[in-house]
Amino acid sequence: MWRQPLHPIDRGVSKESALIEAMRALATHPAARALADDCAVLDFGGETMVLTHDMMVEGVHWLPGQDMADVAWKLVATNLSDLASKGAEPVGVLLGYTLDNDEDARFIEGLGAALATFGVPLLGGDTVSGNGPRSLGLTALGRATSHPVPDRRGARVGDVLWITGPVGAAMLGFEALRDGTAADSTAFRRPVPRLAEGRALAGMVTAMMDVSDGLLIDAARMADASNVTFAIDSASVAFPPALPATRRDEAMRWGDDYELLFCLPARSVPPIPAVRIGHAVARMATAVTVDGVPPEGRLGYSHD
Amino acid sequence: MWRQPLHPIDRGVSKESALIEAMRALATHPAARALADDCAVLDFGGETMVLTHDMMVEGVHWLPGQDMADVAWKLVATNLSDLASKGAEPVGVLLGYTLDNDEDARFIEGLGAALATFGVPLLGGDTVSGNGPRSLGLTALGRATSHPVPDRRGARVGDVLWITGPVGAAMLGFEALRDGTAADSTAFRRPVPRLAEGRALAGMVTAMMDVSDGLLIDAARMADASNVTFAIDSASVAFPPALPATRRDEAMRWGDDYELLFCLPARSVPPIPAVRIGHAVARMATAVTVDGVPPEGRLGYSHD
Repeated sequence: MWRQPLHPIDRGVSKESALIEAMRALATHPAARALADDCAVLDFGGETMVLTHDMMVEGVHWLPGQDMADVAWKLVATNLSDLASKGAEPVGVLLGYTLDNDEDARFIEGLGAALATFGVPLLGGDTVSGNGPRSLGLTALGRATSHPVPDRRGARVGDVLWITGPVGAAMLGFEALRDGTAADSTAFRRPVPRLAEGRALAGMVTAMMDVSDGLLIDAARMADASNVTFAIDSASVAFPPALPATRRDEAMRWGDDYELLFCLPARSVPPIPAVRIGHAVARMATAVTVDGVPPEGRLGYSHD
Repeated sequence: MWRQPLHPIDRGVSKESALIEAMRALATHPAARALADDCAVLDFGGETMVLTHDMMVEGVHWLPGQDMADVAWKLVATNLSDLASKGAEPVGVLLGYTLDNDEDARFIEGLGAALATFGVPLLGGDTVSGNGPRSLGLTALGRATSHPVPDRRGARVGDVLWITGPVGAAMLGFEALRDGTAADSTAFRRPVPRLAEGRALAGMVTAMMDVSDGLLIDAARMADASNVTFAIDSASVAFPPALPATRRDEAMRWGDDYELLFCLPARSVPPIPAVRIGHAVARMATAVTVDGVPPEGRLGYSHD
């Protein structure tokens, strides 16, 4: 789903931000959540459906030559991660696929593996042939398990900021894959959406999202949506053991780890393993501080 | 949504057919309807949701240089046409969009026009940047208004075959646009899904689909799904007044008109304007006959 554009002070107005502003004028239905959340949240029948759609483009979201089984897995996992951030139970997916004779079988294998692993059926989709870079789209549907459905907009001053795991493993995995080293690339190739964690947390969080583009940029988005500032203590953030200490700042600006970032009231304790990394303070000029000062430079990925 | 591949005798096994066979093994949930229908049909919250996802690729589904407002309209209209074929009331759409600086404003204008005309909200989506031919995806959600939800598989021997309007207008519109003539290209550029007609028919049809790829090929698909043969009487088929009589056969093999093709029991009369064009007979070697003989050559579009 569209990522909430950052305040210009943090990021500058991008092409995508301008477009999303125009889209927002068309998205006045409450289910759209003003295009400011990870998912649409639609009352349907007597239940609540959670919906997301994400695209991936060859050369932008995956490396040329990468195993299409991994690409298929990631397409499923990233969309399910959006559902996880709402505490939703996956119901099914619809696939938009661009044919590629050589790689179709690998794609199907990875798609099947991901759907089986996460227990989600393929409900439909479409296939096209195209020239040039291929693109993929996936729509994931889920059933909300908790009401109200978690939102990015609910963090309050005094809340504690938590994350379900370390950041930086996907960065190391990407580098291993790109450079062909012996290091483990699984975290980049086969991310695991935190579905069970999302369901366990959904009823108690004040705000929640998945970290797809980088801890700092995604924390800034949740801060903007909630009109608070997150004071992050970098010594509390967890990193993979293989990460050199000199790269911790970089790891906080790299995406693709798909941990859940969430807020709880000060005295609450999460029912699943998680790391306490900061707290919400009254809104300042910047959406996040790290060790008391605004981070300099680019906060993370932007998907332009 | 995926179109049901034709029997090899009619069309030959295409790349897309082979892929859909592999997808089908992953689509065992009943909501997927074995990927043999225009939509997925999902029970959710005590109601029934109808879902479809279609893609469009530059140079394949639209002419280079075509007004992106028209492309946006068509993307919405073709997906809503799938909902119409199930008698569903549209609930919302999710958009997958590839950025294009020059054309974004036109795209948004056409998207807004289509959504307003058909009364459908934008619920979410994703935007990517890409190089080379751009691709678009749309997921449309609807609420079934009639149970059971119409299916392609229900036509019975003796049923009468009907269509909601003429075929060939989109073909003439395409040629006007391609050749820059003064003739009206609206039918190709701005198709109108038969939503009201679909709802009016849903409770009484034995089978229904929308004609997207051509009357003969789509009739053959419904015949295959229902295991009957449709005997079509070409003198009964309606064509636009501007179509030369010599091009009627061609018009029956051209798509993009988005009329609804449906079956009723022999003595039923549709509650909306429609043309009676044939009837279902016991399955023969070919899925359709025209004036008593199997049509030769290509039956219509295939989206490979």
